Formats: sequence, C-alpha cells, structure tokens
Amino acid sequence: MTEAAYQKLEQRFRRIGAIEDAGSVLQWDMAAIMPHGGAEARSEQLAAVHATAHRLLVDTETDDLLGAAEAERHALDSWQQANLGEMRRRWTHATALDERLVEALSKAGSACEMIWREARPAADFGRARPSLDHLLGLVRESASAKAAKLGLDPYDALLDLYDPGERAANIDRIFAELESFLPDLLGQVLERQQRDPAVIRPTGPFPTDKQRALAVRFMTAIGFDFDHGRLDSSLHPFCGGTPDDVRITTRYDEGDFTSSLMGVLHETGHALYERGLPAAWRRLPVGQARGMSVHESQSLLVEMQVCRSRSFLTFAAPLMAEAFGGTGPAWQVDNLVRLYTRVKPGFIRVDADEVTYPAHVMLRYRLERDLLADRLPLADLPAAWNAGMKARLGITPPSDRQGCLQDIHWYSGSFGYFPTYTLGAMTAAQLFAAAKASDSAIEAGIGGGNFKPLVSWLRRNVHEPASSLPTAELLRQATGRPLDIAAFKKHLEIRYLS
Amino acid sequence: MTEAAYQKLEQRFRRIGAIEDAGSVLQWDMAAIMPHGGAEARSEQLAAVHATAHRLLVDTETDDLLGAAEAERHALDSWQQANLGEMRRRWTHATALDERLVEALSKAGSACEMIWREARPAADFGRARPSLDHLLGLVRESASAKAAKLGLDPYDALLDLYDPGERAANIDRIFAELESFLPDLLGQVLERQQRDPAVIRPTGPFPTDKQRALAVRFMTAIGFDFDHGRLDSSLHPFCGGTPDDVRITTRYDEGDFTSSLMGVLHETGHALYERGLPAAWRRLPVGQARGMSVHESQSLLVEMQVCRSRSFLTFAAPLMAEAFGGTGPAWQVDNLVRLYTRVKPGFIRVDADEVTYPAHVMLRYRLERDLLADRLPLADLPAAWNAGMKARLGITPPSDRQGCLQDIHWYSGSFGYFPTYTLGAMTAAQLFAAAKASDSAIEAGIGGGNFKPLVSWLRRNVHEPASSLPTAELLRQATGRPLDIAAFKKHLEIRYLS
Repeated sequence: MTEAAYQKLEQRFRRIGAIEDAGSVLQWDMAAIMPHGGAEARSEQLAAVHATAHRLLVDTETDDLLGAAEAERHALDSWQQANLGEMRRRWTHATALDERLVEALSKAGSACEMIWREARPAADFGRARPSLDHLLGLVRESASAKAAKLGLDPYDALLDLYDPGERAANIDRIFAELESFLPDLLGQVLERQQRDPAVIRPTGPFPTDKQRALAVRFMTAIGFDFDHGRLDSSLHPFCGGTPDDVRITTRYDEGDFTSSLMGVLHETGHALYERGLPAAWRRLPVGQARGMSVHESQSLLVEMQVCRSRSFLTFAAPLMAEAFGGTGPAWQVDNLVRLYTRVKPGFIRVDADEVTYPAHVMLRYRLERDLLADRLPLADLPAAWNAGMKARLGITPPSDRQGCLQDIHWYSGSFGYFPTYTLGAMTAAQLFAAAKASDSAIEAGIGGGNFKPLVSWLRRNVHEPASSLPTAELLRQATGRPLDIAAFKKHLEIRYLS
Repeated sequence: MTEAAYQKLEQRFRRIGAIEDAGSVLQWDMAAIMPHGGAEARSEQLAAVHATAHRLLVDTETDDLLGAAEAERHALDSWQQANLGEMRRRWTHATALDERLVEALSKAGSACEMIWREARPAADFGRARPSLDHLLGLVRESASAKAAKLGLDPYDALLDLYDPGERAANIDRIFAELESFLPDLLGQVLERQQRDPAVIRPTGPFPTDKQRALAVRFMTAIGFDFDHGRLDSSLHPFCGGTPDDVRITTRYDEGDFTSSLMGVLHETGHALYERGLPAAWRRLPVGQARGMSVHESQSLLVEMQVCRSRSFLTFAAPLMAEAFGGTGPAWQVDNLVRLYTRVKPGFIRVDADEVTYPAHVMLRYRLERDLLADRLPLADLPAAWNAGMKARLGITPPSDRQGCLQDIHWYSGSFGYFPTYTLGAMTAAQLFAAAKASDSAIEAGIGGGNFKPLVSWLRRNVHEPASSLPTAELLRQATGRPLDIAAFKKHLEIRYLS
C-alpha cells in the first residue's frame, strides 16, 4: 500500500513537473522573443498552465496519498523520504492558496510585467504603479494565507517559497554582521583604488555577433552544453527553461562587451546547476534546485569567485583580445583585473561590484518588507528608494529607471526573493573556499582554462544532492559548517585590500 | 439553467483553448528553436499538456453540460448554437480515445518526429521505420476507435478531424475528375513551355538577412502584423503559434531566394487567416479555423492565385531587384512570371508547381489509405512511393530523402491530412474568382501593392465566419456554389495555356 501510494505520488508529481516545465518554456518565450501583441493570450496560457499544476497538487487525492506514504515512510530510502518531504512542503504551500488567487496572481504578474517593460525605458513609475498596486494586493493576500497555514510571519511565508527554511530573523542577523564591516571596507577599498593605475576601458564598437561568439566560447569552455541549451537576448538577463533545455539570456551593448560577457558567465553558473541536477529524479521535487540562495551561489561562484579572478582573466584576456582584434594596454591582464574588480557605488544592482552589491539587496529587503506590511505607500516608493541609496551608497538615482523601476522582481510578483542574492554571494565564497581546499587541481585548472575539476566538485557537492538535504545541511556537508560571513569577508579582504 | 450550462461550457472550452494554445507555442518552439537534447523533456511536456486538455474535454461534467445546453438550444443565438455544435463534435472525437492512447500518440509523435529530423537529411528511411511503425500502430488504433464512435470508416474518421464533414468517397470523386484532365493538361503545358523563352535564374549569393528583410517587406505589405507574430527558420516551413501571436517559419537557400520567398508568402496566407479569426470568440471552438482545406485555401490563395500572378510580380519585381542589387534580364517581370509559373515534374511536394502538385497529393492519399488499412507493409513504402512517382510524373526519386522521407506529416502522426492540400487549391481558385467578381478593386490593388481590398473580402467571407458554418456552406455563401473543379481548371488553363 505505502509503496503503491508513494509510486502514485511520484507519477503525479512528475506530471506536475512536466506542466511546470511547460510553463517555464512559455515564460522564457514571453521574456525573450514573444511579440508584444501576444501578451494577453500568453497570460491566459500561463494562467491555465499554472492553475492546472496547482489543481493537481491540491487535489484531495494528493493529500490522501501523502498521508498513506508518510504513515510508512520507514519503508522508503533516504531520497524517497526527502522526496516525500518536499512533496508535502509543496502541498502545504499550494493548499494555502485557492485556485482563484493562484490564477489572479499569474495573470496580474504577467500583466504588470508587460507594463513594466514599457515603463522602465520610459522611466515612468506612475505608468506601472496601478498594476503593481493591484499585484501587491494579491501578493499580500497570498502572504497572509500562507502565513496562517505555515504558522509564520507573512514575509517569512514568502521567503520560504524561494529559500526553504530561511527566516527574516536569520537574515536580519546576517545583514547586521555585513553592515558591521562593509561600509568600512568600502571606504578602504575606494581609498586603495585611488592609488591604483586608472582602469582603461577597451574601446569598441563591439559587434553583437562577435560578443555572442566570445560568450559561446567561454560558456562551452566552462561546460555549458549547447545540445541542451540556448543563449538569447532579453531585456532582463535570466536563466530559464528546464534542466534538459537550459536557456540563458543576456543583453548586448555594442560600446562595452565586458558587462554582457560577465552576465553570461553569471547565468552560466545557474545553467550548470540546472543541468547538473540528477536525471533519475527529473521533474520530481527532490530532483529540483534546493532554493534560490543555493542557485545564486552557483551563478556567483562562477562569476565572482572564478571569472573575476586573476587566474581566470589570465586565461581569458588573450581570447578577448583575439575576438575583437584588441591590442594595447586595455587588453592586458592587470588592466582587465582592475576593470573586473573595480568597486564603484552605482545605481544599478545587476551592474554592481561585489562590495557594494549587498547594499542594493539590503535596501530592497527593507523596502519590500515595508511594502508587504503596508507601512510604505506605493506612491512613496521612489522617494524611499532614492533616500535609501543616498544613505547606503551616497548617491541619488537621476530617474526611476535607475531607481525603483530597474528590477523585474516586484513587477512580476516576486517579494522575498532579493535577500537570496546576498545569501548566495556568501554561500558562493564558502563553497569555493572549501572546493579549493579539497582539490588543488581546481585553482590550477581555472588559470589554464580547464574547469572540469571545479565543475566535478560542484556536481558532487551541490548539483547532484539537489533537494535531498536542507540548505543548511547541504552546506555543512560540503564545507564543514553552516553559513557564516567568514569566507565572504576573507574573500573581499584578499581580493580588494591585499 | 441552459444559459448557465452554456456559459459554463464557454468557460471550460476557453480554458481548454488556452491549454491547447500553450501546446502550440511549445510545438513551434520544438520545430523552430529547441536544442536537440531537449526533445525527450519536451515530449513529456507536450504529453502532459495534451492530456490535460483531453481530460477537461472528456470529463463527464462536459457531457452533462452539453446535454443541458442542447436541450434548450433554441434559447441560444446562431453563433452560440454553432459553438455548441462544435463543442459536441470535439467531445465526440475526444471521447473516442482514452487518455492512455492520447498520451501515447503525443509521445510517439514527438519521438518519431525527432528521429525523422535526423533520418531525412541522412536519407535513411530504415532509421525512422521502427518509430514510424510504432506510431502508425497507435494511429490505426485511434482510427478504429473513432470509426466506431462516429460510425465512419477508419480513414474518414481521421479525415474528419482535419476537415470536418469531408469523406473519402467525395475525395475519390473529385480526384477522379482531376485525373481526367490533369495529365493531358500537363502534357500541353510542357509542350507550350518549350516554345517560351528559357527561364533565367537570378544568380546569388542571396544573404539570409537580405532574404529575410525582403520577406518581411512583402509580409507587411500584404498585412502580416509583426506586433502579433514572428518569422523564423525551421527545417519544414509551417505556420504555428496562436491567433494573437502567429509564427511562420521558412528555410533559406543562399543560392536561390525565390523558393523561400514564395514559401513565406504561402505561410502568410495561413497567418492572415489565424489573425483574422473573430477576437470575440477567441479560444472557443466556433472561433477557430474551419478546417485544413479552408486553411490551405488561404495560403494557396495568397501564394498561387495572388503572388505568382503577373499583377503581383509586376509590383514585386523592382523590390526584389532592389533587395539584392539585381540587374538585367533575370529581374524582368516577364522572366519572373515564367520562373514562378514554371511547370516541371519534380520530387519534392513543397517545391511543386500547381499543375503537378495534385499528383503528389494523390500519391500520398493512396499510400496513406493503404498504410492505415495495413494493405501496404511499411518496409515496402519506399518502393511503392517511387513506383507511384514514376507512374504519375514519370520520374523516380534518387533517394528516400526526395521520396517518402520528405514530409513531416506521417512522422508526426498526421494521416488523413494530405488531401486537404488539393481541396484547398481548388477552394482557393473558387474563392479568388468570386472575390474578383465581387470587387474590381481587388485585382487592381494587387498590381499596385495594395492588398487591403482582397484581405477585407477574405476577412468578411472566410476569416470572420470562422467555424460558424460547415465548410460547404461557407463556400456556398462566399461563392454561390459548393466546391467543384471548374474554377481550378479554368485558372490552370488561363495561366498555363493562354
């Protein structure tokens, strides 16, 4: 009976997974290539797909099967037990919301996102505000419903969806520790930078097709498999698709190849994780990514820990020069290292260096908690944003395009997501330190363009375990201890002060 | 009660339509841009999507609601009545198959299609045969189940899905009439052609990006709306997507722009039909395309009746020359007319002229009836194909790539589809003759690059009625009589013999 119940659950969740994967492809298409006029029909399609997956998940039969399987979980192996636990977790999240709300969120998210796509270049927050207001109302409703069901605060209830087990109290503690040394560190770094030679920017134009070819070359070297993935363009770079068809996007600037290229390498880290998830558990909860802070650790490990290092840039510099016919001091390793580790307070989160990045995240974290709790009226968001930037980084955005309109997250309904970026950065530092300590071939490989030792360590310690362990335990097994600020702090001090 | 039942049916069928639309986008993606390694996962996604739509359709509640609404159909207006009739038709088709078979067909179709994508360029029918054999078995099973439910022969039961109301007996009669004059006509045309000046092919290379730009220019002139559609590349050109996001594909040959361009114009005809379907009935059965012979009539009307005419080529010739910097006799209207109305027996259906095209269709029609009835073993298909080509057009394909591997249809599970091409060609001729007779601005417009009068007639007489009338009645209202060979025969005689 238990075996049968568990097997039926696997079948049901594989079906749910396939439908969610269909939704991922449709979402990728919407962001990357869909003509504008298809938006309304697409939002109907996504709503239908999401409601279908939701209905299968909240069906009473799912609960009955979960109960039957849980009653005899000792008969299951550890992965099956973890799978069962994840199934129950999803069920609990899903049954907190009725179908009407799920569908309303899906439609309002699609609609607001499409308006944001126009409002952002026009720097017109007012245009996006009514639909964001409507969406935020639904997000609050969803947070309350989940809070009641999970016995959590509303913000924690949202956070738990993106980063299972994470709580605002823990984030408050970690962010307080970061705030205790980052402003000082930033001051020292800026001071030290003034003594360095000036950064020389390679001058373009850098044609899009050449930028793309270079990106493909590095992606391939690092291990991206184009038989199971694509590289395209979109307004807001992201990694989408499914583990067997991972799709990353970037945006090109013909006057500067360096930012787009590093963005591609960042998304490549996400893509390696997705592709490395265990095929035997495909489309099942336990076989999926552990959570967004682990996901972000994989992109930041590739981007920040690896690709902005002197080792990597020693390998990369001649390939960059070759791609664009570049010669002279701008293309020297020393200059590229300075360029790629340049610290400068700026307006745009996705362009931020790793020293100032946490300030961007902490600002959004405070603001989204206030928005959710209805302590901050939406009309005051632009001013609160700008005041926060002034207080944290000493700069004021000249328009909402460089302010509260810059990120897609809130406009697609994602609240509780932002902190995972900084948790991810810290996790990346801790994982990379442990990886290098366990295998000396990893660091040596990077300088020679051989990423196999690193990827193999990540496969074993992060990708293949997937969701079989809680995040904290995954990290403990991989690095010997839970997340703390030590490795991140040390990394910043070595890279920026020594 | 009836009103409520009918309204609930609309809601349910709009949901089914949205899920089917999601499937269309996934299918487009698979054919146009998906990396090869994504095939297995995609087939899981499509199977899940198709099974979901199927399950909603065959749910007992659907039958109950249909019964309740039908009991008081007099309270509905004519479109609602037609909608109800189409809902019942779909229900009948769908309940003929159990979910296991629907899913097996979807998976086997995706799998066989992916193998065909390799087998075709390799001219290796043997590689595709096992999966085609498996697929054909499922198609036979499905045809038998539908035949029993609909009270039809198995082949008619398949045909009815693509072209509601059409029957093999009617096709046999029409094809016999075609066979009574086409071989003679072909002989006369070939003889006459020998007296014409030789066709001069414009010489390339014709870069893909310039070909694409020219295609976009003509598409836009004819009325394709790029805010609601895309043009991409795929191995087998098709029109996919949804009415609000119509996606056509083509394949480019840098040595010859003429074939790809005409292919794009053909697909543009399909796209105009989809886009012109009545928005108020979006995602409902009555608001969808009438059937494949009407669909093909719209592509062939644009391609064969309009774009290969002297009027259109008079407008198009200077734009073609401008696009590629072409000069000299190859770019003269007379020569382009000869090129685009060149009749020559050949191996490839999609490249065939309109005089020999019916032979390709009639061959496939005979073969697929024999395959379905298990009168022709799959192992003998290549030989039977080649013998048929020899008998009908006097030529023998040098390999299966130019023979039985050339078309995607059978390899994706479509049997009963091919006859609609020739029924569509005849319908196109009859519609275009009626359109010109009703508004003299239509023919004059084409020569001046103004397609609005034509498109407006098509919108009114074909696109907007959608599925509110049976095919025969739609044609009768638009042209004054049911389908016959007169207009098609006259068109061929005027174009090729006068």
